[in-house]
Amino acid sequence: MKYIVLKFGGTSLVSPELRERVAGKIIAAKDEGYVPVVVVSAIGREGDPYATDTLISLVKQTYHDLPAREMDMLMSCGEIISGVVMAATLQAMGYPAVFLTGAQAGIITDRNYSGARILQVQAKNVTRYTQEGYIVVVAGFQGTTEDGEITTLGRGGSDTTAAALGVALNAVYVDIYTDVDGIMTADPRIVAEAKALEVITYDEICHLAHEGAKVVHPRAVEIAMQKSIPLRVRSTFSDSPGTLVTNSGEVYKGTIDITKDRIVTGITYISGIAQFIVRIGATGEGLKQQRRMFRALALAGISIDFINILPEVVLFTVKDDVAEKAVKVLENTGYMSEVITGCAKVSAVGAGMSGVPGVIADIVEALTKDDIQILQCNDSHTTVWVLVRREEMEKAVRALHRQFKLDQ
Amino acid sequence: MKYIVLKFGGTSLVSPELRERVAGKIIAAKDEGYVPVVVVSAIGREGDPYATDTLISLVKQTYHDLPAREMDMLMSCGEIISGVVMAATLQAMGYPAVFLTGAQAGIITDRNYSGARILQVQAKNVTRYTQEGYIVVVAGFQGTTEDGEITTLGRGGSDTTAAALGVALNAVYVDIYTDVDGIMTADPRIVAEAKALEVITYDEICHLAHEGAKVVHPRAVEIAMQKSIPLRVRSTFSDSPGTLVTNSGEVYKGTIDITKDRIVTGITYISGIAQFIVRIGATGEGLKQQRRMFRALALAGISIDFINILPEVVLFTVKDDVAEKAVKVLENTGYMSEVITGCAKVSAVGAGMSGVPGVIADIVEALTKDDIQILQCNDSHTTVWVLVRREEMEKAVRALHRQFKLDQ
Repeated sequence: MKYIVLKFGGTSLVSPELRERVAGKIIAAKDEGYVPVVVVSAIGREGDPYATDTLISLVKQTYHDLPAREMDMLMSCGEIISGVVMAATLQAMGYPAVFLTGAQAGIITDRNYSGARILQVQAKNVTRYTQEGYIVVVAGFQGTTEDGEITTLGRGGSDTTAAALGVALNAVYVDIYTDVDGIMTADPRIVAEAKALEVITYDEICHLAHEGAKVVHPRAVEIAMQKSIPLRVRSTFSDSPGTLVTNSGEVYKGTIDITKDRIVTGITYISGIAQFIVRIGATGEGLKQQRRMFRALALAGISIDFINILPEVVLFTVKDDVAEKAVKVLENTGYMSEVITGCAKVSAVGAGMSGVPGVIADIVEALTKDDIQILQCNDSHTTVWVLVRREEMEKAVRALHRQFKLDQ
Repeated sequence: MKYIVLKFGGTSLVSPELRERVAGKIIAAKDEGYVPVVVVSAIGREGDPYATDTLISLVKQTYHDLPAREMDMLMSCGEIISGVVMAATLQAMGYPAVFLTGAQAGIITDRNYSGARILQVQAKNVTRYTQEGYIVVVAGFQGTTEDGEITTLGRGGSDTTAAALGVALNAVYVDIYTDVDGIMTADPRIVAEAKALEVITYDEICHLAHEGAKVVHPRAVEIAMQKSIPLRVRSTFSDSPGTLVTNSGEVYKGTIDITKDRIVTGITYISGIAQFIVRIGATGEGLKQQRRMFRALALAGISIDFINILPEVVLFTVKDDVAEKAVKVLENTGYMSEVITGCAKVSAVGAGMSGVPGVIADIVEALTKDDIQILQCNDSHTTVWVLVRREEMEKAVRALHRQFKLDQ
C-alpha cells in the first residue's frame, strides 16, 4: 500500500471549518491514490505541550505538582479528544474513519514520562484498519510502555509520532501540516521577503530547528532520516507545495546534491541570551581556574553555550533568566565577570557552506555595513553563529538574508 | 490483604474541598486496617453518563452522531481526569497513590460500546500496586476489550466497576459513596420522616432501583451478590454508618433473617406515566385482537408495563412521552383507547411481604383514607405497585410510608 502520513497541529483543528479543511487535505491524498494515515495534536496544543485545552489546564492549575505518570495520563486526553473529533469529521463527510490512541496504534515507548522515546511501532492495527478501507486517525504525542503505562513524548511529540509511523509503514511521504507555507528562509515576521524553501536536507532542518526555527522537531527528522522517508512541511491554510525534506544525495530535479548551489539555507535567531566575559588566562594556573569555573557552573545546573577560550579571556553565554544565578556562582568561586544581558544569537545555516571560503567574510561585511556590532562569532561546517544585541537582532537577520540572496 | 473498595460519584469530586473530604474517607479506611482501592466517576457525572464535563459535552454538541466506538474513547477521558485529580489529592496529603485506567485495572469487557458488560477482572496491577503500599485509584465506568478497544459500561457503570473489583479482590466491603446517608425508606424530598435503612438485602435494593429509587445500579448489586461481597451505601457528606447490603440469610445483630420483621423496606415512585385502557374481550376473537395490538406496539418500539388483562378490558402503561405515538399505533390497528396521561407508579418494596396476608389491604386502606384514587394495582411477592395521578403521588408515598411505620 502507498501510505502517506499526514500530521496536523492543534492550530489546524480549532474550529469545525478548519477541521473540514484538514479533512479536505486528507481526502485529496486519498484521491491521489495514497492510503492516508492521520496524526493529530491536541486541539489548541501546538509546539508547547503545556498550552493545551482549558479543562486540562484547569486541573493543572490546581495540581501543579502532579506526578509525571499521572500527568501523562491527563495530557493524553487532549489528543484523544481531537482524534475523536477528526475521525467524526471525516465520517460526517462520508469517509469511514477510525481513531486509535497511541497505544492502539502500537507506539511503544520507554518509561520516561513527559519525554518518552519511541522504542518501536507495532502498526498491525493501523494496517488492518487501512486494509479494511478506513482512514486511520492516530493520537500524536502519546504512546504506551510494554506493560501498558500511558506516556507522552514531550515537545514536538506529534511530529515524532508521524515520522515513526511513516517509517513503520514505509510511507511515501510524511506530511507535516503547519500554519506556514513550508520551511522559511527566515521568520517572515522579521523578513518580509522570506520565502518557503522548495527543498532542504534532513541535516539542515535539524540545524535550523536547533538554532531557533520553529519547524519540525529534530527528533522527528532524525527518525525519518534513518529510513530516508521524505518529509514535506506544508500549510493547512494554502495549496502551496511546501518544503520537501530529503537526503543531500537525493536526485532532485536532475541535480544529485540538492544543496550544492546554495551556501546558506536559512537565517534563524534565539533571543534572551546573556554574554559572560571572564578574564582568566589559558595557561598554567589559568587552566585550573577555568576547569573550576566550568565545573561550578555545571554543578549549579547552568547550561552554557557559545564558548570561546582566548589567551586572556573566556567568553560564553547563558540564558538571560539564569544570568543572575551564574554571576553568583562565579563570585562564589572567586571570579569577576562582565555580563551583557539582552543579547541574541543569529545563525546562518546551510549544508552548502562546508568548505566554501569567504562565508564569515560575507557575514562580517553584511553586519558591519549596517553598523551592527558583533559581540561574538563562532562557526561549524554547517552554521555560523553571531551574537548581537537584542535590539539589533531583526536588522542582523535581514542583513544576512539579503547578503545570501535568500529572497531570490 | 483486607481490601475495601470505595466508589465516589461525580458530585463528590467537584471541588478541592470535597476531594479532600473524599480523601479523608479513604485514609480513614486505611487507618482502620483496610487496603483501600478507590473507584471514581467523572467529575460532575452522576447517574446519567451523558451529563459529563463541559469539554466533552461541547464535542458532543458538534458531533451528535459520533460512532459508539469513538464516543466511548471520548467518554473515557472524564474518568481519567477525575482519577488523576483524586490520586493527586491523596499524594498532596502525603499518601502515595497511583491512578489506573479501566484497562490498566484489568476491567475486561465485551465489545458492546456505551453499554459494555464486564467479562472478567484481571486485577494484577491493582494487587501489585497495593502490595507496594500505594492507594490505587481506578477509573470507573470504563473497560477494555481483550484486543484493546476502550469501552464504557453505561448507566451506573462506576458502581459496576466497584462491585467487580470488590469480587476480584475478595474485598471485605464495597462502599458506594453518594450524597445521601444510605438507602432511604422513601425520597426525603417527599417524606420528611424518611430514614436511612440500617440493612437491606441484595434483592430488595434491586427492586427499589427498578422501581425508581436512585441508589446503587442493579447490575452492580447482582455482581456483588454472586460472591456475597457486602455493599455499604454511605454519604460523602456525613459520618453516618450508611446502609449495609447483604444476603437475606446473613446473621445480622443476632438475627438470621434480616428481613423477617419488616414487611416493607421502602416506598419508591416513577412519574411520567400514561395509562391505556383498551376495551377488548379476552376470549375467542378478543384474544387474537390482543395479540395483534401487543405486536403492533412492540414493532413500534414502545415498551409497555403494568399490564392487566381483565374479561372485557386490557390495561397497560407507557411512558408519557410516547403516549401520543401509542395512541396512533392503536388507531392504525383499529383500536380505540382511553388514555390518562400524567400518572405515577408508587411502589412498596419488601422481601418480607412474601406470604404475609393483608399487605394489599393495608395499602388500599392507607390510600383511600387519604382520598387517593387507585387507577390500577399489581403485586408480586416482593413489591406492590399502585398507579395514581401524578398530583396525588407525593400524598400516596407519604401515606404508604406512614402505613408501614417506616419512620420508626
